Amino acid sequence: MKDGIKIVTIGGGSSYTPELMDGFIKRYHELPVREIWLVDVENGKDKVEIDAAMARRMWEKAGYDVKIYTTLNRREALTNADFVTTQFRVGFLEARIKDERIPSYYGMLGQETNGAGGIFKAFRTIPVILDIVEDMKELCPNAWLINFTNPSGMITEAVVKYGKWDKVVGLCNVPVIAMMKEPIAIGYDAKELVYQFVGINHFHWHKVYDKQGKNITQKVIDAMFEGKDIGLPANIANVPFFKEQVEQMQMIPCGYHRYYYRSQEMLEHSLEEYKTIGTRGQQVKETEERLFKLYEDPDLDTKPEELSLRGGAYYSDAACECINSIYNDKKTHMVVSTKNRGTVPELPEDCVVEISSVITAKGPMPIAWGKLPSAQRGWLQCMKAMEECTIEAAITGNYGLALEAFILNPLIPSGKNAKEVLDELLIAHEKYLPQFKDKIEKLKMNGVTIRDKVVFDLVKEGK
Amino acid sequence: MKDGIKIVTIGGGSSYTPELMDGFIKRYHELPVREIWLVDVENGKDKVEIDAAMARRMWEKAGYDVKIYTTLNRREALTNADFVTTQFRVGFLEARIKDERIPSYYGMLGQETNGAGGIFKAFRTIPVILDIVEDMKELCPNAWLINFTNPSGMITEAVVKYGKWDKVVGLCNVPVIAMMKEPIAIGYDAKELVYQFVGINHFHWHKVYDKQGKNITQKVIDAMFEGKDIGLPANIANVPFFKEQVEQMQMIPCGYHRYYYRSQEMLEHSLEEYKTIGTRGQQVKETEERLFKLYEDPDLDTKPEELSLRGGAYYSDAACECINSIYNDKKTHMVVSTKNRGTVPELPEDCVVEISSVITAKGPMPIAWGKLPSAQRGWLQCMKAMEECTIEAAITGNYGLALEAFILNPLIPSGKNAKEVLDELLIAHEKYLPQFKDKIEKLKMNGVTIRDKVVFDLVKEGK
Amino acid sequence: MKDGIKIVTIGGGSSYTPELMDGFIKRYHELPVREIWLVDVENGKDKVEIDAAMARRMWEKAGYDVKIYTTLNRREALTNADFVTTQFRVGFLEARIKDERIPSYYGMLGQETNGAGGIFKAFRTIPVILDIVEDMKELCPNAWLINFTNPSGMITEAVVKYGKWDKVVGLCNVPVIAMMKEPIAIGYDAKELVYQFVGINHFHWHKVYDKQGKNITQKVIDAMFEGKDIGLPANIANVPFFKEQVEQMQMIPCGYHRYYYRSQEMLEHSLEEYKTIGTRGQQVKETEERLFKLYEDPDLDTKPEELSLRGGAYYSDAACECINSIYNDKKTHMVVSTKNRGTVPELPEDCVVEISSVITAKGPMPIAWGKLPSAQRGWLQCMKAMEECTIEAAITGNYGLALEAFILNPLIPSGKNAKEVLDELLIAHEKYLPQFKDKIEKLKMNGVTIRDKVVFDLVKEGK
Amino acid sequence: MKDGIKIVTIGGGSSYTPELMDGFIKRYHELPVREIWLVDVENGKDKVEIDAAMARRMWEKAGYDVKIYTTLNRREALTNADFVTTQFRVGFLEARIKDERIPSYYGMLGQETNGAGGIFKAFRTIPVILDIVEDMKELCPNAWLINFTNPSGMITEAVVKYGKWDKVVGLCNVPVIAMMKEPIAIGYDAKELVYQFVGINHFHWHKVYDKQGKNITQKVIDAMFEGKDIGLPANIANVPFFKEQVEQMQMIPCGYHRYYYRSQEMLEHSLEEYKTIGTRGQQVKETEERLFKLYEDPDLDTKPEELSLRGGAYYSDAACECINSIYNDKKTHMVVSTKNRGTVPELPEDCVVEISSVITAKGPMPIAWGKLPSAQRGWLQCMKAMEECTIEAAITGNYGLALEAFILNPLIPSGKNAKEVLDELLIAHEKYLPQFKDKIEKLKMNGVTIRDKVVFDLVKEGK
Repeated sequence: MKDGIKIVTIGGGSSYTPELMDGFIKRYHELPVREIWLVDVENGKDKVEIDAAMARRMWEKAGYDVKIYTTLNRREALTNADFVTTQFRVGFLEARIKDERIPSYYGMLGQETNGAGGIFKAFRTIPVILDIVEDMKELCPNAWLINFTNPSGMITEAVVKYGKWDKVVGLCNVPVIAMMKEPIAIGYDAKELVYQFVGINHFHWHKVYDKQGKNITQKVIDAMFEGKDIGLPANIANVPFFKEQVEQMQMIPCGYHRYYYRSQEMLEHSLEEYKTIGTRGQQVKETEERLFKLYEDPDLDTKPEELSLRGGAYYSDAACECINSIYNDKKTHMVVSTKNRGTVPELPEDCVVEISSVITAKGPMPIAWGKLPSAQRGWLQCMKAMEECTIEAAITGNYGLALEAFILNPLIPSGKNAKEVLDELLIAHEKYLPQFKDKIEKLKMNGVTIRDKVVFDLVKEGK
Repeated sequence: MKDGIKIVTIGGGSSYTPELMDGFIKRYHELPVREIWLVDVENGKDKVEIDAAMARRMWEKAGYDVKIYTTLNRREALTNADFVTTQFRVGFLEARIKDERIPSYYGMLGQETNGAGGIFKAFRTIPVILDIVEDMKELCPNAWLINFTNPSGMITEAVVKYGKWDKVVGLCNVPVIAMMKEPIAIGYDAKELVYQFVGINHFHWHKVYDKQGKNITQKVIDAMFEGKDIGLPANIANVPFFKEQVEQMQMIPCGYHRYYYRSQEMLEHSLEEYKTIGTRGQQVKETEERLFKLYEDPDLDTKPEELSLRGGAYYSDAACECINSIYNDKKTHMVVSTKNRGTVPELPEDCVVEISSVITAKGPMPIAWGKLPSAQRGWLQCMKAMEECTIEAAITGNYGLALEAFILNPLIPSGKNAKEVLDELLIAHEKYLPQFKDKIEKLKMNGVTIRDKVVFDLVKEGK
Repeated sequence: MKDGIKIVTIGGGSSYTPELMDGFIKRYHELPVREIWLVDVENGKDKVEIDAAMARRMWEKAGYDVKIYTTLNRREALTNADFVTTQFRVGFLEARIKDERIPSYYGMLGQETNGAGGIFKAFRTIPVILDIVEDMKELCPNAWLINFTNPSGMITEAVVKYGKWDKVVGLCNVPVIAMMKEPIAIGYDAKELVYQFVGINHFHWHKVYDKQGKNITQKVIDAMFEGKDIGLPANIANVPFFKEQVEQMQMIPCGYHRYYYRSQEMLEHSLEEYKTIGTRGQQVKETEERLFKLYEDPDLDTKPEELSLRGGAYYSDAACECINSIYNDKKTHMVVSTKNRGTVPELPEDCVVEISSVITAKGPMPIAWGKLPSAQRGWLQCMKAMEECTIEAAITGNYGLALEAFILNPLIPSGKNAKEVLDELLIAHEKYLPQFKDKIEKLKMNGVTIRDKVVFDLVKEGK
Repeated sequence: MKDGIKIVTIGGGSSYTPELMDGFIKRYHELPVREIWLVDVENGKDKVEIDAAMARRMWEKAGYDVKIYTTLNRREALTNADFVTTQFRVGFLEARIKDERIPSYYGMLGQETNGAGGIFKAFRTIPVILDIVEDMKELCPNAWLINFTNPSGMITEAVVKYGKWDKVVGLCNVPVIAMMKEPIAIGYDAKELVYQFVGINHFHWHKVYDKQGKNITQKVIDAMFEGKDIGLPANIANVPFFKEQVEQMQMIPCGYHRYYYRSQEMLEHSLEEYKTIGTRGQQVKETEERLFKLYEDPDLDTKPEELSLRGGAYYSDAACECINSIYNDKKTHMVVSTKNRGTVPELPEDCVVEISSVITAKGPMPIAWGKLPSAQRGWLQCMKAMEECTIEAAITGNYGLALEAFILNPLIPSGKNAKEVLDELLIAHEKYLPQFKDKIEKLKMNGVTIRDKVVFDLVKEGK
């Protein structure tokens, strides 16, 4: 890093790239970036070029001399990288749409990172991230991997446990947004509050304390039930929690807990969208197309407002802040996916949790939470076991384990339909699941077919 | 115990009592019972007298001088007891029918020990068992409590953790039946096999080894999928497991695992019965009436064949064998609910598990299983946490915790309906839930009403 | 705390008081102290008055309006306190001298916080701190207890586990000094380094990282073996560690580890002092007398240089920094004794560890270390078990447990002499050990006598 | 095992061999042994032939047709073995004498399995046992390894953790003798008692219950302090425990606990022998010579009485009983070294403990003990960590780890002398420590020499 930092962004053709640029530009005075490599695959070539052109305009306007490169050759980019950020999406939005629609066809939740969809996103992504890690070991062994590809927790755990790579941080925007919105909702300055988060990605709780160290979590609970905005991500339907439950636990659940605490309503909402306006992935696809239209405008040289509607707002900003905190040993409090190390003593010591951490020059130093109440403990243990089955199945291609993950997943009612969803998803994603090749062959010979019309067409078109 | 053993049976008016007598008669040569006290409540008076008369005929026929007493005064019976067996049912079969029908009305599983029904059976029973333990501390401090009132595992955990009473064994007939039927199904003599069970009540798995110590679990799996009888309890619908799952885990799930591994089909079957022939409790009620008709016959002096259709077959026999093994330090292998002590290291050390144990003069010595694979670990941890919430709510009457138990329970889809089931069950069982008195008052004031016609009538009739 | 902070210092007549004043004066711009109460007992009356007069001169010189009160009535002082610091010494230096000399007479290590001496210091102090906590519950329930009375870790654990008081921080100057001296020894600016400590009080290790996150612990190891000053406390003989051992563990042991890693030499050194210039306590007594002579000088209005020779340098400064960080939510990195919460997963979750923490408005948030290598894990587990026996014996007066603590303590060779040391110490400290009253009576009746001449005289004089 | 069992005994030339034969002869009616292979090394050739001749006479007298083979070719013997017993001693008694005398020279305990001696016995033996396991994987993959080579616990742990071989049982005669002698001492029939043991090899405790399940451990404590014989191994000096300690723990320590609970006296006794009659190894050497004289007598065809004085009495008998119990699935209660699996939840799940187990066709099923009191927990954790360092050093030849094991060992006072003992022992055992080759070279170059005259001579003679 002698003469400035080299950043490599895998999935550089993402619609988030301008936010990432914006984040680096804002921090340039303390984070001297020298060059940024946007890496993508053949199918993402057009978008990565649009992003790169947009990025160059943004940097130029900011008045800093930072080089933007694009490449389809990941290894070329990784050589001597200082930080590698990952925001790629194996199979593009078409894959997400399959993840959402196939379960929906069977009356189950179709969601990007939860239920069957989340498991399959892990199946497609884990082999790729492990390849990236192998390249990093060879080409940039001192670099940090800053992952914000979802499901961020499982990806990070795969990197740590199977990739044997410790210099990784998993990021999520959900805690970021909570810590932005909640203070406003309860009339405090964010700087006056002490936050402590515990859990796993998309499945965490937190408590809030004021300047005198007083637990004021109840104030946030009150605000939540008064309908104030406490930071629900744009992609999650606003079904209220049960007040008696939240007051009993005295912790603030994250937005995604709705899927588990109000399954009935969340399912109804999801199926309604499936049957009418299309799943979230289909909606996002349109948003993305609009965004890239904007990015193509040669006069646009700042991050457009529309980007914040995209769902993943602040994700890229969190990545920049994390890099900044590592580079400058800022000891910022961030909530990241990192190795447990005992912070949640009832989970395996070497699994990955999403936890309040101090981000230092040596990476995240996680703050121990200690024992959890029975309910939260049980939920976390169940979800972590489901994640472990998923990760192991993603690596081995073991169908029995994939089935175990499905059956253990609280959002997939077990039984005949669950198995059909599993089988259809395997076939639908065949191109990205080489580890399950043999099983997929057999399923096809046994005549498993895709019943959802939209997905059927996507597969037929080879998407 | 100088001049013979004093047995006290709480819930003496149960239809199982003749089996219990049969068990003691068969073992009299080594287990010198002197007197048996059948205790029941006012509403069970007629049945306990029928049982007592039947018991006297059985003992007379056997030619042993054993006194049978009946009483509605539990404390009178407990004085100087050596073994106390509990087979009572708070609220009789009417309560079970409510537990089954109210969830069914909302399209959920209605089952005696699983889902909402199991939670409410615990809510009604735990305060009573803790009262019994208090009496025992005073009146028979050296006695053993042999519990086979369901949910047996949670009852036992309440006794150990909240009653602070260690001399307790929780029993279940499910492992007994498995170890009787499986050897036949695979063509072995039961004595040639080594069994090891692990889990919690109605949620355990096991492995089987032959005389050479070879793991032959796969043989049982094969027999299971060839449709052979491996001991499915009479009350559980015979939906096959997924072969890929069972072969992956290389353990035999218990019959009740169907509710979790094939939720869809088990739910369909349960709702079908609800809508047609009535729930299991309603069916059992008829069986029971037939049984007591038989017991009234002054010529009947042996356990009738029909009893084995009742569902709980071998339960009472297991109780006798357990008592025998303690009394004679027989070191029999039995699968019982007892304190974990590390046998399942990923569960709390002081919780209750159902585990292969050696039954000695000092009670069960549980055999350590060690680490479990991810899926089984996650399932157990989730279920145990749900049990902990249930037990604590049963003791404190905390509604928030009851809600947590419901939401965490894998057989109750969370959301609006779940809360309505919870509220209706509270009202339906009001008589037996003094700990929830305040909440029930509020619910009634808020106009919560019971929608299932059968239950509505039962409540109106004050049953 | 509306109109300024009220500080109460138990053991206000300590020679450290001027350092404490100095710490508050330096931080007055952000830590608005209003009044400081110096509490002591009858025997400490003269010293506390000297300290108070000195303190008033110091504050006056600083130009701040802070009131200094003295009292022998602890409850008067505690009323509405904001922070309570404890630096008292039950039995004064005479008690320490007994702790050191009696073991020395039998050829064992005589040390203030290690071996037999440390156990007896806990025996005397724990009942007193628990009394203080009871007063705090009543008189200042929102106050923080900042303890720097030794043995700081055991005192803190007693407060948390038996006093059920969570708002406590245990402090020690050893990590403070290490983090001051090591950077100088290896040629770095302290601000460039990231430190992580793990262990228990007077028994911890740490690692050091540079601004790039690189582990540079080996540099400190090299400096240590080149003889550079890396912060050995003044009271510990400078026996070098074994280089092969330290390089194997790749962690920096604390100064006190010498007693365990080089027992032979440390014992020889201690016995040599015992036989010649007197034990450390005797030396400190002279230093203290000199210090109080200085404090009496009405012209002295700044902390004198000589104080830093006293051994406990920076202790009081650490207390001020901790209070400052809580009051202002500074999120400073400090190494404190606090509840484990999983930071060291192989120790009980609810024990007290000394660990790198972030000091916030809600107190210390400890940073999880994760699994330790076998040797360090075994050492910590052994020492923690010894501490648990000690604390329980201190509370119950159970002689068997006291004996268990002695036998388990690695610095007390078990056997006849160990028991004699235990018995003599009980008699020597009779006045401060009401919990052991019965046992002491019996020992005296059995003719146990104190063999060390100096201690014999102290006891005879009633000191 | 179709036509009878093939036993292979590594270290067949041991003086225990006749006891082993006796054990098999006594059990022949249920344990149909077909052939026994006595394996030894070149230097043990004479003894193994004497043993074989004696064995043949014993079997002939018993009237059974069992073939006895001798060989120096281990692989020849292992082919198709059913049970492999290990009773070899790397370096013969000369090595033990070195283990005892070198520490004694420096005033430390010199003992076969404790302190420095035990660590070096592990260093010499572990590489050999791992070689044997590799051979077994190839030549007799279904065989059981029954180890009674000391230090039996560490050897078993090395086999399980590093050899990845689960079919192993570690045996010790200490629990056997306790369960034989204690009932006599307290006037009970052994069959009336229930025993439960917990701990690690040569470091375990137990409790005793009567037929009514009553804890009668205090009766054994009383008998112990009345001086009755409760089974102290012949090789341990009879120093009494502290009564207050044993009554506090309410567990019976094993004989070897004397070294830890009464270090002072045990050390004095050991040094006295060293200076006068020679160490235990030297004494045993004479006993062994006498024994082999007896074995040479062509008229001797039964196990001679003198053998029971040898120290290891009942060791071989325990091996036969263990084999018998596995072969016949007898479900005998035995105390064996086996994988922890949670029986002692505060030790690593995959370490080896010595624990009450049921010996079945599938091997030992260990009985869970649960949480231990602080002192016993701390002792075990410390000793286990010391064992882990020892085993890892034995495999890697890491000198730093060897030093860690020495320093952590409670019977080796750390410091200069400890390091000299370590260095001298490395040199003394050079022939058997190829893993430490480089370090030994350096030590020799640095002029480390052996100071004890006897050991010096042994080394000079190449023994």
